[in-house]
Amino acid sequence: MNSTSNQLLVIFGASGDLTARKLIPALYNLYSDGHFPENFVVLGASRSNLSDEDFRKRVVYESEFLKEEVKSKDKEFIKKFADTMFYTDLGDDYDSEYSGLAKRIKELNTEYKTDDNFTFYLSTPPSLYEPIAKNLYDQGLTKGSGGAKGFRRIVVEKPFGYSLETAKELNAGLQKYFKERQIYRIDHYLGKETVQNLMVTRFSNSIFEPLWNRNYIHHVEITNAETVGVEKRGGYYDKSGALRDMFQSHLLQIVSLIVMEPPINATAEEIHNEKVKALKSLRIMREEQELFDHTMKGQYIASSINGKRVKGYREEEGVDPESKTETYAAVKFFVDNWRWKDVPFYVRTAKRMPTKVTEVVIHFKTPHHQVFKNQDINNKDNKLIIRIQPDEGILIKFGVKVPGQGFKVERANLDFYYSSLSDNNIMDAYERLLLDAMQGDTTLYARADEVEAAWAFVDPILEYWAKDVNVNTYGYPAGTWGPKNSDDLIEDANGWRNPGELLTDETGYCII
Amino acid sequence: MNSTSNQLLVIFGASGDLTARKLIPALYNLYSDGHFPENFVVLGASRSNLSDEDFRKRVVYESEFLKEEVKSKDKEFIKKFADTMFYTDLGDDYDSEYSGLAKRIKELNTEYKTDDNFTFYLSTPPSLYEPIAKNLYDQGLTKGSGGAKGFRRIVVEKPFGYSLETAKELNAGLQKYFKERQIYRIDHYLGKETVQNLMVTRFSNSIFEPLWNRNYIHHVEITNAETVGVEKRGGYYDKSGALRDMFQSHLLQIVSLIVMEPPINATAEEIHNEKVKALKSLRIMREEQELFDHTMKGQYIASSINGKRVKGYREEEGVDPESKTETYAAVKFFVDNWRWKDVPFYVRTAKRMPTKVTEVVIHFKTPHHQVFKNQDINNKDNKLIIRIQPDEGILIKFGVKVPGQGFKVERANLDFYYSSLSDNNIMDAYERLLLDAMQGDTTLYARADEVEAAWAFVDPILEYWAKDVNVNTYGYPAGTWGPKNSDDLIEDANGWRNPGELLTDETGYCII
Repeated sequence: MNSTSNQLLVIFGASGDLTARKLIPALYNLYSDGHFPENFVVLGASRSNLSDEDFRKRVVYESEFLKEEVKSKDKEFIKKFADTMFYTDLGDDYDSEYSGLAKRIKELNTEYKTDDNFTFYLSTPPSLYEPIAKNLYDQGLTKGSGGAKGFRRIVVEKPFGYSLETAKELNAGLQKYFKERQIYRIDHYLGKETVQNLMVTRFSNSIFEPLWNRNYIHHVEITNAETVGVEKRGGYYDKSGALRDMFQSHLLQIVSLIVMEPPINATAEEIHNEKVKALKSLRIMREEQELFDHTMKGQYIASSINGKRVKGYREEEGVDPESKTETYAAVKFFVDNWRWKDVPFYVRTAKRMPTKVTEVVIHFKTPHHQVFKNQDINNKDNKLIIRIQPDEGILIKFGVKVPGQGFKVERANLDFYYSSLSDNNIMDAYERLLLDAMQGDTTLYARADEVEAAWAFVDPILEYWAKDVNVNTYGYPAGTWGPKNSDDLIEDANGWRNPGELLTDETGYCII
Repeated sequence: MNSTSNQLLVIFGASGDLTARKLIPALYNLYSDGHFPENFVVLGASRSNLSDEDFRKRVVYESEFLKEEVKSKDKEFIKKFADTMFYTDLGDDYDSEYSGLAKRIKELNTEYKTDDNFTFYLSTPPSLYEPIAKNLYDQGLTKGSGGAKGFRRIVVEKPFGYSLETAKELNAGLQKYFKERQIYRIDHYLGKETVQNLMVTRFSNSIFEPLWNRNYIHHVEITNAETVGVEKRGGYYDKSGALRDMFQSHLLQIVSLIVMEPPINATAEEIHNEKVKALKSLRIMREEQELFDHTMKGQYIASSINGKRVKGYREEEGVDPESKTETYAAVKFFVDNWRWKDVPFYVRTAKRMPTKVTEVVIHFKTPHHQVFKNQDINNKDNKLIIRIQPDEGILIKFGVKVPGQGFKVERANLDFYYSSLSDNNIMDAYERLLLDAMQGDTTLYARADEVEAAWAFVDPILEYWAKDVNVNTYGYPAGTWGPKNSDDLIEDANGWRNPGELLTDETGYCII
């Protein structure tokens, strides 16, 4: 286990939903597992007027996310955790003077001996990143401004930008006051063990990497399917869409781990260098014809699932009734480098699908020569399936002999489930990422150039779709595997691999 | 399913143990599963004086191997099977005139319309192969002698020879009267589904063959371990030994399937051609030093297993009390061809080991470059383990990330068990081989040149051991993994892979 220095964690947006729902429970788990340093203080900051006690009640004692813990654990144990929490009011505006905050930080730092080490966690809208950074700078709380002895780190949430241009602006805004190595951009997918295991699978084994290239791989398929709709996020989602919400961030991060070359070593810098190189090698689509041929957008329409009516996207709260925002996005692309030339990648993400699943499927080429004649022609390729969630694991589809005379070949599975590991106490993604930030490990955070390279690839697709000329938004009944013609995108006789079963009772499809 | 022509099966040695224990039960299963052709007759022949009815009683109605079937099944069903059985007495000697046999064959052929198709199954000592073949020829019962319309096939049991010279004599003796394509040399290991699956695994998948060579494979290990001792076969075994009994036949057959190049197609001829080429590419050891360094023989000595005393080999019935016959044989060798140059193969077979297991282990090289520093140095290679018996299946040992911070790598298993197949009604090896012979498929039988190539490799080892100069026979307590120094043979820090647990209470080792 790495060691964690004494420190003070400032959470901006401390009265918000994410803090109560994710951050404090993650902190609680770190506390429970003994990951807190000797001296550790959390200072919540936001516009609400709360006392330290109010804040402790809200995020610990009366938190619906910790209520089981509060009920079942020793009172002293809970109190010791709650007592690390403090709160300060920022006034009417995040972009006001931070002298009060600065004073509180310095007092707590002195009282609790947090060694002048400050981590700033921004659980706020991206528009506040630069103002907060500037105000911290003005108060001498950043490294550059104050000549501090300890460390200064700033953690920011996704979405990181809305386009390449806005991402660049955000980066520039933060980089005025913090050095890149002090900036931690969260992509909680990178906190998932199975995502990190992509690298280990590739680079700690000698049997996968020799096959991991254009000579042996026919195509790569990545699916992120959710069963839920937009839920309460309609207002936000309608301005964003699946491509920004999932594809640009999480899915391109997974792509980079599949595509990357072996790093020199497993340090953050070398891994980031290879990931950036991978993302920069994605062939950016600029021609309208290519964009038309290689992308597909869809939107879920009303259907009935198990006899119960399910709303269409346009009926959701906060969504424009004539919205063309995609809840289904599928993109075919190529990677222009030595390893991957001409190997198509197919990546899709959607809401209201039949099952919740995220997986990578490496489709290997069929054997060059067919030795056994009666092998099923449509099902003879080997597949390596890496299941990110749920049922985390790895599966190889391969051919075995069907018992009996002759050489009839059938597909079988070589499988591994992460749950079978002796030590399978898997940390929650937030918990893991928070601890890494507290320890100064940026490996699982996105670097500025990574984020920009991902936006550079996505931007032309967003622009093409926004023009809304020659672009169809295909309706798909909630609970189906997307638009009826979605298999047209993929050059595989079997179409997309759709794990699981259809939930819907509907069969209609249309273009909306 | 292939079709089986009407035919008459003549079993020589019909009153012997193998006929009752293996052949008739295998025939019964073929009958039960509907694999008998419309017209099918079995004619038992041996020196015993039995009537048809006596024979039916012996091998069907009163057979201890079929008693459950006879008890539980419909009487008419059993009778129909028993009624296919006939018997003829050969007189005092197998090498007498066969006019009586010929007469009986012709009568049965006419009466039961078996279309002049005869399969001769020789369940006799090898010394009788040529005399029987000659006598059949003299009676016009072979193809060459009689101008028959139907087919003539001759099936012979192992051991096929005692050395290269005796194997050549047996081949020559049979080939005087039968063409090679009419001769079926049984190696019941080839009847095992998992052995046949070696070829399917390699050649119906695109992911294994690219790795199947000296660039990726570090070494190959094959283990055949039995828990039993020589049992009632002491007299036979003491003249034979592990190298002749298992290695020359079964294990070199497995070696040939691992080593072989992909055949043009899955026909018997092409598969045999590749297997012969594989066996001929084994580097024959001729220098004493090489034979000393690369071979090891052992003999089990008395020990106690679970508190119960177990006899040493030399105390077994029929065994010379000063015998140096090996019950443990291990051989290291190389394969001189483009694919395998410099890849060591380690093959061992032994009796009285801790567990019953036959498996092939492909040890892949460690990754060229160690990206993750704290990977367990002693356990970082990938292994492909093909379990022939029991728990038939395939296992890949590979590295996965241990949950938690950093990149700690642990070994995990990707596994497949044959029993998980939907259609896992696995035919017994004898049943399968009999049916193949009845249908004229020689794929799973050993061809003359295959047998001779295997003997050519084994002969110098046998001769070196027989000289008994500079050769130790290492004692190992019954129930252990062989001689204490057995790992000296293998250049792997971990030594042999010993699946399962030690059964013995002993710890002593010695040279005997």
